[in-house]
Amino acid sequence: MDIINVILFDEFETLDAFGPVALLGKLDEFYQLEYYSQFGGLVTSSQQVSVQTKDFSELMPEGIVLIPGGRGTRTLVNVPDFIYQLTQICVDAKYVLTVCTGAALLAMTGLINRKRATSNKRAFAWVRSVNSQVKWVKSARWVVADKVYSASGVSAGMDMTLGFIADQHGKAVADEVAHKVEYTWHEVATIDPFAIV
Amino acid sequence: MDIINVILFDEFETLDAFGPVALLGKLDEFYQLEYYSQFGGLVTSSQQVSVQTKDFSELMPEGIVLIPGGRGTRTLVNVPDFIYQLTQICVDAKYVLTVCTGAALLAMTGLINRKRATSNKRAFAWVRSVNSQVKWVKSARWVVADKVYSASGVSAGMDMTLGFIADQHGKAVADEVAHKVEYTWHEVATIDPFAIV
Repeated sequence: MDIINVILFDEFETLDAFGPVALLGKLDEFYQLEYYSQFGGLVTSSQQVSVQTKDFSELMPEGIVLIPGGRGTRTLVNVPDFIYQLTQICVDAKYVLTVCTGAALLAMTGLINRKRATSNKRAFAWVRSVNSQVKWVKSARWVVADKVYSASGVSAGMDMTLGFIADQHGKAVADEVAHKVEYTWHEVATIDPFAIV
Repeated sequence: MDIINVILFDEFETLDAFGPVALLGKLDEFYQLEYYSQFGGLVTSSQQVSVQTKDFSELMPEGIVLIPGGRGTRTLVNVPDFIYQLTQICVDAKYVLTVCTGAALLAMTGLINRKRATSNKRAFAWVRSVNSQVKWVKSARWVVADKVYSASGVSAGMDMTLGFIADQHGKAVADEVAHKVEYTWHEVATIDPFAIV
């Protein structure tokens, strides 16, 4: 059983977090879902969803970390103690999954320097400006580099998660999960209908 | 400005609620999102997301009501005071949107008797058993009947929401919202790749 540590913060993008959660939650024989924020308590998404969280000190290392994007990332890239704690969490993690501008937070840790990653195409210039040492991929639904999976914008997080599930448990399991939630998935990571080339 | 009253309960299906929310939240010039449960306070989804809610007594009538599905609906169809309150809320609502087995809760109110509606194909037999006076549609991504929009399983709620947005604001606005969240939508309500015929 792996723990999925979902990292939340004020003004996270609701679907970035809960799209992947909806899929991983269908495999409760493999994954346990937990929700964390830097200081714990209620954090509120950009769509006014207030979610109860535990604080970072309670987070068990060696889990799988999911980092959503959203407007809140624009502030957090400039909060050193948040980035420092996130760095420790990601160093210890078995896998790190980012969605949309969540990749900007991971980029700030320095852990993906010289590695390939992607992000939301509408925020691409900003994400690249956060850390130009990352090999940012302009056209990809999602990108895998070592233990890091990064997805493009919002609902691409669901495809990345299905890709992750396929890598871990086989394509048939990913297809079954997609079918359970009646989701037609983009199965090929490199085909990105929303890329701005 | 319309208020979207999202109805939550323990063991709601996370994506049923937050897929539509992710889309409607992109139109914050038209919609304000609020979260309600029968008694208020924290309610927890089947994927362990604990969300802060106001109680039904605080809900302003004449808004748009969104009813997700999930395991919790199996209990709630048998809770008369919940169904009674939901009936009042839906009578007063400008529109009612259901996702997945959320349609079973609406069916219990009697408000869609002799009207067309759909639900998750995997739970179809149960949903039909809740109220056979509804004209349940076996193959549809979503169905519109008067002020009621009902979606098939989970991510079909996102397509229904885009259909709702298209009906309210035009197809171009729906396309723009879908593009913002990099979602490839099923644009035709009657084409249902997950139907069990």
